[in-house]
Amino acid sequence: RLARGCWSAFWDYETPKVIVVKNRRLGVVYRAVQLLILLYFVWYVFIVQKSYQDSETGPESSVITKVKGVTSSEHKVWDVEEYVKPPEGGSVFSIITKIEVTPLQTLGTCPESMRVTNATCDSDEDCVAGQLDMLGNGLRTGRCVPYYHGASQTCEVSGWCPVEDGASVSQFLGKMAPNFTILIKNSIHYPKFQFSKGNIENRKDGYLKRCTFHEVSDLYCPIFKLGFIVEQAGENFTELAHTGGVIGVIINWDCDLDLSASKCNPKYSFRRLDPKHIPASSGYNFRFAKYYKVNGSTARTLIKAYGIRIDVIVHGQAGKFSLIPTIINLATALTSIGVGSFLCDWILLTFMNKNKVYSHKKFDKMVDAPEQGAGQGLCASKPSQQDSVLTDPRGLAQL
Amino acid sequence: RLARGCWSAFWDYETPKVIVVKNRRLGVVYRAVQLLILLYFVWYVFIVQKSYQDSETGPESSVITKVKGVTSSEHKVWDVEEYVKPPEGGSVFSIITKIEVTPLQTLGTCPESMRVTNATCDSDEDCVAGQLDMLGNGLRTGRCVPYYHGASQTCEVSGWCPVEDGASVSQFLGKMAPNFTILIKNSIHYPKFQFSKGNIENRKDGYLKRCTFHEVSDLYCPIFKLGFIVEQAGENFTELAHTGGVIGVIINWDCDLDLSASKCNPKYSFRRLDPKHIPASSGYNFRFAKYYKVNGSTARTLIKAYGIRIDVIVHGQAGKFSLIPTIINLATALTSIGVGSFLCDWILLTFMNKNKVYSHKKFDKMVDAPEQGAGQGLCASKPSQQDSVLTDPRGLAQL
Amino acid sequence: RLARGCWSAFWDYETPKVIVVKNRRLGVVYRAVQLLILLYFVWYVFIVQKSYQDSETGPESSVITKVKGVTSSEHKVWDVEEYVKPPEGGSVFSIITKIEVTPLQTLGTCPESMRVTNATCDSDEDCVAGQLDMLGNGLRTGRCVPYYHGASQTCEVSGWCPVEDGASVSQFLGKMAPNFTILIKNSIHYPKFQFSKGNIENRKDGYLKRCTFHEVSDLYCPIFKLGFIVEQAGENFTELAHTGGVIGVIINWDCDLDLSASKCNPKYSFRRLDPKHIPASSGYNFRFAKYYKVNGSTARTLIKAYGIRIDVIVHGQAGKFSLIPTIINLATALTSIGVGSFLCDWILLTFMNKNKVYSHKKFDKMVDAPEQGAGQGLCASKPSQQDSVLTDPRGLAQL
Repeated sequence: RLARGCWSAFWDYETPKVIVVKNRRLGVVYRAVQLLILLYFVWYVFIVQKSYQDSETGPESSVITKVKGVTSSEHKVWDVEEYVKPPEGGSVFSIITKIEVTPLQTLGTCPESMRVTNATCDSDEDCVAGQLDMLGNGLRTGRCVPYYHGASQTCEVSGWCPVEDGASVSQFLGKMAPNFTILIKNSIHYPKFQFSKGNIENRKDGYLKRCTFHEVSDLYCPIFKLGFIVEQAGENFTELAHTGGVIGVIINWDCDLDLSASKCNPKYSFRRLDPKHIPASSGYNFRFAKYYKVNGSTARTLIKAYGIRIDVIVHGQAGKFSLIPTIINLATALTSIGVGSFLCDWILLTFMNKNKVYSHKKFDKMVDAPEQGAGQGLCASKPSQQDSVLTDPRGLAQL
Repeated sequence: RLARGCWSAFWDYETPKVIVVKNRRLGVVYRAVQLLILLYFVWYVFIVQKSYQDSETGPESSVITKVKGVTSSEHKVWDVEEYVKPPEGGSVFSIITKIEVTPLQTLGTCPESMRVTNATCDSDEDCVAGQLDMLGNGLRTGRCVPYYHGASQTCEVSGWCPVEDGASVSQFLGKMAPNFTILIKNSIHYPKFQFSKGNIENRKDGYLKRCTFHEVSDLYCPIFKLGFIVEQAGENFTELAHTGGVIGVIINWDCDLDLSASKCNPKYSFRRLDPKHIPASSGYNFRFAKYYKVNGSTARTLIKAYGIRIDVIVHGQAGKFSLIPTIINLATALTSIGVGSFLCDWILLTFMNKNKVYSHKKFDKMVDAPEQGAGQGLCASKPSQQDSVLTDPRGLAQL
Repeated sequence: RLARGCWSAFWDYETPKVIVVKNRRLGVVYRAVQLLILLYFVWYVFIVQKSYQDSETGPESSVITKVKGVTSSEHKVWDVEEYVKPPEGGSVFSIITKIEVTPLQTLGTCPESMRVTNATCDSDEDCVAGQLDMLGNGLRTGRCVPYYHGASQTCEVSGWCPVEDGASVSQFLGKMAPNFTILIKNSIHYPKFQFSKGNIENRKDGYLKRCTFHEVSDLYCPIFKLGFIVEQAGENFTELAHTGGVIGVIINWDCDLDLSASKCNPKYSFRRLDPKHIPASSGYNFRFAKYYKVNGSTARTLIKAYGIRIDVIVHGQAGKFSLIPTIINLATALTSIGVGSFLCDWILLTFMNKNKVYSHKKFDKMVDAPEQGAGQGLCASKPSQQDSVLTDPRGLAQL
């Protein structure tokens, strides 16, 4: 009998009893609050923030770069092979704009650079044989020898000789560098949405041979002049070419995949990435060497290269309609609209003229009476079997 | 007295008054709607989408690669050192399959390539001395000289001579390349969950010396044949070896960290990454050179290398049970189940036979009566001190 | 008339009828449950987990590195140019600590390495001319020749000769390597919040020339000793220098952008990244060569380099106050607090002494009466025109 009662109660429909207050002022406040909340959700949450979308950041990205151009210094002509390092055309590469060449270094002994701490000496006693200064150029031999130029003396070291500070010659390659062209092929893939796109126009008419990038008219021609990149990053080319620096070419793929694929376009921005104003470490340079065999012994040309390093950074965010965020935001909207009724309840019971009348009507007072037998379990709590009410699902539904 | 009343009212329990409608049809609709919503949440949101998990994308990843194999062209044997660039074994490397060698270039003067715009000439007057064509090979000397072969003439340039187009010889290295093996060691780390894993079997029996990758039987043997990678990417090896191209080896670590670590396995996929069908820029090639000293002057061998660049791309998503998303989704589920009662209310009051009766029962009408003294503040709104009701927490609890 | 009724009903205010149970025990349970839920949200969700913030992971990052130091092996002094590969100062670079040099390889014929499968032979019949072993060093000529040392014989190959296993000489560069200093310049950018920061102090007093990194006192001096990095990663330097290995320098930028920018500081951690205990593939090494012209023919020095590869990995998460997650979590909190009333309802109706009385009071029973004319549409459901109630917005507000 009990189970039957529970089963019957399970199929009852329950709905809260409601008091209708026919007060125009209160009704206006109530609706206005609801309207404001609704507007916030419809306009800001759903339209501006697109909260109905599932999103993915950090697309898989592949970058191929190719630099073209020739430049000349006082002495010679430089081609791409010489001024682009590394040559493989990846997403990070340097365009060398100034070099300090130390030609024909061989393993031997020579005076240490004067810039090294404690390198200057007056006699052999100032130089400790076998000492290896971490910031020096080699192992000290213990002798004090005349410097490359001038009248001073420094400790002799065993290493690649002559040392850079004593013999290097500077060459500036950057004269024509602003006209170098950089082709940046980029293709991205959002794995969650199975969406791929590239940044290059698929045209057969030789368009890519003659175009240069323009944000509006030639967005799908990713060929940039180096000068354009540096200018967009807000830097002075000549200055940058002398000190070196790192420029980021940031490609941003913000895609609303609910629209057609043609609305998903790359957005390029350019920014200086290395700390510019920090005296001790500004600029960008690195050293490399070319090794030779001269008469059976090894010699090398050491090159300290200052250059503009280009970091192609790809990021992006794709969004597409998805049920779960939509429902979470809708549920939040419903809950938030309910906050309006709390405000009005408070006005009703506090500020309205007849608040005692309303309060009496809304609240049904029950004072504890003497005991009357303990509870009999979940379903037995109904007044009579016929009225039986299963409290559980109702409680849930109420929330 | 007022404060005491408020305090007493604070400990009152309030519960909404409910009307029980004993109508089987309405109850069935009500429960069916609830069941559907419940099923959606339990099955789709919690089981399929695992919304009870906190997730992290983009694991920290480290890739070490090593290529093995030898190949031969018509002239010579090539080993790994020669055909893999850069050699350091990072996540991006190129396997050179075809080269165009321009041997023994020296700084001097020679005819410009015929491919350069305005390079062909009839007399010295067609050539402007000191002109530097950005896409050319050097500084024009102002003379018109016979081309390397044939009867035509081009302007003479000062630069690395002879120019590539005039003197390069092609060699194909790709004959044995499909048999090259590539070892890809990858280890990932999800910092949020402090979880690390690698893609390589920890076995001591020499397993890694003889295995090759197989998705089912040898998942933890990350040794791939180059031919296998190219085939999986859907490309023709010979064609790719001649034009060059970029193949992505994508390692995907989708991990449900609520399960044991052994269920978190890498998933490999292979995809051509460069734009294949774009005529002006298809394929992948780069130039590098080897520098020599010959009789005291510098010479170089310029190499235009076509190759297969392998980009190892690692991504992944890890999920683990977390309280906050679980509670957000549970709260959304509760709110959504409540939507069922709205639907039934509307049916009850609109379509049911006795809707006037129901409506009368559900709605308690109150019409504005004449004024009766203004409100007296928050807690004073109760009908009498004994019935005092603090409205604030009730309103919150109701939502 | 109907429309006017609907319009009037639209401005009615509706509020659920509530039963106030003046039972102190139930009230205490009710408030305690509410308090617990409130505490969880305020403390854990909002304060600990900062769920009121919108977050962004994976900042745009740029890394510039520079290694300094000299070391010496038995034979010679090594400078940065020689032991750091690649030289460009990117986020991944190797510091070579041990090399195996095979000097003066030329293209020719020589005995195959004994390590290659089937390379040992007794007579020419064991060697197949024209065979190319993938893991060997060249094309077999078909002759069986004496090995470099010892009495055994191996098949002759055509390739770079002599082969590495026969002629290489080992040199250890790692003696001074723990004292090498590594400068890691890193700047990050969170595009969503337009926030940039670098890891380097902006001081003009030469601070960066003399400082070394310390987590507390010198956080903004990103100059690390190699020995410090290896030690922090929990490795033994000498062992690592001999086998090679990959160490990750992980820079973590966890930023609460609601606070001032000075609270957003990098956190460094160090971890061995390659699989250490896997016998077949432990360690890290790679091969490169230097090419020479000797008497018109090409020779090379092949170098197998063991080294410590440093991977600078940058990740991070930035959070900033945002309305949408705040409101979602507030709505969840409100819904969750409501769960408390479900629990108390169940106690009230099941365990309270007078549960029948409460149940009678709470539930208003309605039994189906005989039919009375069908419904008349949405707004017609009101008892009389004057009481008209628009059910829709009320239903929403109730949720």
